[in-house]
Amino acid sequence: MSPAMHILLAEIRTIVGNTHVLTEGDLSAWTQDWRQRSHGRALAVVRPANVDEVARVVSACAIFLAQHPDSGLSIVPQGGNTGLVVGSTPDATGRQIVLSLQRMSTVRRVDTANLTMTVEAGCILQKAQEQARAAGLWFPLSLAAEGTCTIGGNLGTNAGGTQVLRFGNARDLCLGLEVVTPQGDVWQGLSGLRKDNTGYDLKHLYIGAEGTLGIITAATLKLYPLPKAQLTAWAAVPSMEAAVQLLGLAQQHLCASLTGFELMGQFALSLVARHFDNLRLPPYQNTPFCVLLENADTESDVHARNQLEALLEDAMTLGCVTDAVVAENLTQAQTLWQIRESIPLAQASEGLNIKHDISVPVSAFAAFVAHTDALLERAIPGVRLVNFGHLGDGNLHYNVQAPVGMDAAVFLREQEALVNRIVFDSVLAHGGSISAEHGVGSLKVDHLPHYKSPVALSTMRAIKMALDPNNLMNPGRVLRLS
Amino acid sequence: MSPAMHILLAEIRTIVGNTHVLTEGDLSAWTQDWRQRSHGRALAVVRPANVDEVARVVSACAIFLAQHPDSGLSIVPQGGNTGLVVGSTPDATGRQIVLSLQRMSTVRRVDTANLTMTVEAGCILQKAQEQARAAGLWFPLSLAAEGTCTIGGNLGTNAGGTQVLRFGNARDLCLGLEVVTPQGDVWQGLSGLRKDNTGYDLKHLYIGAEGTLGIITAATLKLYPLPKAQLTAWAAVPSMEAAVQLLGLAQQHLCASLTGFELMGQFALSLVARHFDNLRLPPYQNTPFCVLLENADTESDVHARNQLEALLEDAMTLGCVTDAVVAENLTQAQTLWQIRESIPLAQASEGLNIKHDISVPVSAFAAFVAHTDALLERAIPGVRLVNFGHLGDGNLHYNVQAPVGMDAAVFLREQEALVNRIVFDSVLAHGGSISAEHGVGSLKVDHLPHYKSPVALSTMRAIKMALDPNNLMNPGRVLRLS
Repeated sequence: MSPAMHILLAEIRTIVGNTHVLTEGDLSAWTQDWRQRSHGRALAVVRPANVDEVARVVSACAIFLAQHPDSGLSIVPQGGNTGLVVGSTPDATGRQIVLSLQRMSTVRRVDTANLTMTVEAGCILQKAQEQARAAGLWFPLSLAAEGTCTIGGNLGTNAGGTQVLRFGNARDLCLGLEVVTPQGDVWQGLSGLRKDNTGYDLKHLYIGAEGTLGIITAATLKLYPLPKAQLTAWAAVPSMEAAVQLLGLAQQHLCASLTGFELMGQFALSLVARHFDNLRLPPYQNTPFCVLLENADTESDVHARNQLEALLEDAMTLGCVTDAVVAENLTQAQTLWQIRESIPLAQASEGLNIKHDISVPVSAFAAFVAHTDALLERAIPGVRLVNFGHLGDGNLHYNVQAPVGMDAAVFLREQEALVNRIVFDSVLAHGGSISAEHGVGSLKVDHLPHYKSPVALSTMRAIKMALDPNNLMNPGRVLRLS
Repeated sequence: MSPAMHILLAEIRTIVGNTHVLTEGDLSAWTQDWRQRSHGRALAVVRPANVDEVARVVSACAIFLAQHPDSGLSIVPQGGNTGLVVGSTPDATGRQIVLSLQRMSTVRRVDTANLTMTVEAGCILQKAQEQARAAGLWFPLSLAAEGTCTIGGNLGTNAGGTQVLRFGNARDLCLGLEVVTPQGDVWQGLSGLRKDNTGYDLKHLYIGAEGTLGIITAATLKLYPLPKAQLTAWAAVPSMEAAVQLLGLAQQHLCASLTGFELMGQFALSLVARHFDNLRLPPYQNTPFCVLLENADTESDVHARNQLEALLEDAMTLGCVTDAVVAENLTQAQTLWQIRESIPLAQASEGLNIKHDISVPVSAFAAFVAHTDALLERAIPGVRLVNFGHLGDGNLHYNVQAPVGMDAAVFLREQEALVNRIVFDSVLAHGGSISAEHGVGSLKVDHLPHYKSPVALSTMRAIKMALDPNNLMNPGRVLRLS
């Protein structure tokens, strides 16, 4: 480490306190990504306690970088480190500071009349959900990592999850932000307003920017009244087209009460059956796809059940559902959700696979899957497809598993590039996105130029260079400057 | 006009056709704003037929401006010219081109399975609503000017209206955009995706930028299933606090079915009674405020009525409603809405007043009104307040009318600055916004620096200079560069 960097670290120690600047010992909790695809090295892990400390740390780094433009210094903001695209861990240079927001975890305020809560970036999603519930309200963002991921990370990556159908992505649940800019200034934008047309919407720019434009330190979030009943149903559908038809029918019947619509392919379910023998699956063997529906009712359990049963009856008459069950109680409902949420782990137990987090318009869903399945089968005979996802949002986790008997590591090494190209080209042809909810990070940064409009990319680049001209904030993530 | 400008105009004529470049005759439909506060002069009114023509016109202007930086040339994008903040009409220099999107009015596609429609910027809002309805779907954006305003203008200004409570502002109804940049490039971002995390959300940057960063030429919009019943109720409430309490109760009872919650002050209603003697108002004389509620039900008329009546019963038991009626039929419902929507015209008939379009958190609503009313009464004894607005969104049209007997023009001339300062200072103190839904335009551009965070303003400025370095697009609107 250069003498100048020593001085910088000493200054940072005076800002956040010696014990909150980690440089030694096992730092892998911060330097290794959740899926363990990347093992980086940090100049230091810095854990500030409040927005003022964040601002002072960033300001010190900004001044240092201006004085030492070739130092390679940069800042990687990090929340719960559960991201899936290697966007919040340092690279191998040892010149990146991991700025962890974990200590900033306070729920600053719940405003029940305004239906908002203001929380710090390091607040774990589940804690935010619980504090809302304690006030009799609902913060509906929900995803598998909710026990570990943080609000700051959720917003930095514009997280999706299972409730997007009704409530939108993380950005749609946010009314205001507090942000530390790459210069170390603080933007106090913690508005609780549902209408504010006084200039460019900066909030939406920072959300989903994955820490490349500044550091989100707190947010004001939307809350909703708690539903009176949440009912879950499981339906067997005879085809992808039928699943799309069922979605349309469910939207007509349930409208805003439809809070979940998850598709699961037969092979994906067979993996759950194989690797989780404690879970009792509803019949799935004789149907290509199953759908999990959730109805969050504002009236009563009886009303929710009547609504859901009327929908399923209609669907069976029309032929888009061949068999269905409605969960009788909370335990049954939880089991159905557990089956859905066990798919990622079940496929991990089956061996490494090539993951995609793609979206297409719902109207192109069936055509996309048919087209891509056929291309892959032709390129790699016997290839197995773990299809599941949030059909209601047009979002599919279209994962590709090696043919039976082929070594998974070899498959990944030899076929990943080809498989990605086939899938991404098909996504593009069907008007879709190669990253629906996980983001870009460093994992997809070099794919983007092939699949995103050059006008969009150059506009993004102009914004990045205007707001962070020295490229201090999370460089090499989302976009490259040269 | 300089010879160079003559050459530019000739080039534009070859792009869009001679008949679509207007330079003579009465151009006031394009050069005068809707409220007739500003009478500008245009170098020309240019009416391109498609995105390609828009791009070529902008490109020609960009090249001209680069060659003639002192020419004062700029472009003012315009839709239906119904804006309220003088943001889409030219200034007095005669060097601004009004680029009217009126000829680009096609609904390009309705995708019923994806619940989206793609429309051109010049499409009138009402036409978009009708085309959605013809497909059995609902485009819920709704506002007084809907027969004249355009989708491009709605998005450029992030329009609000009466359905924000349930569906959000215009930005929340948009999935993708087609935009011509200040360089004359076309960003094809007409995505129908509900999830796309591939970089900065440019769509949200252009929406609400009032044409200062580029020209929106088309958009993909969200559609919803049509409700089975839409019921309207009218409630007398004993205080502002009671109105806020009723809102919370209505949100619990109706959740997403609550699509309207409009507050009207007694004085505002008395103006309607005075100037619209054909309208029969429900009793309002013995109550300080009335509330209009709308319940868009997904089941049936009977269900909607039961829900609404249960809510009102609860509210009367709690004392936050003293009297209420539920419209018996569509005609009655329309009359109730007509009363609400006649307030702006009624106050116009009463004489000029000082208008504000402000928002505060719902939880600060009552305190804001009490505080500001008292300050104004102290400053201008006898001042009359026309309070009405979208309480559900925290948005109030807090308009200030001269005391009885005082000349309205004199009042405006002598008191406007003082009244604005009192109201805006109070808005700021209550965590609100000085422009909730109308935007900034040129009318509020010089207020903004006093009421917006300097960090936000400098970030906005950096973005503007990065994307439009020569300040071609709608200069002097939203923000000043120097």
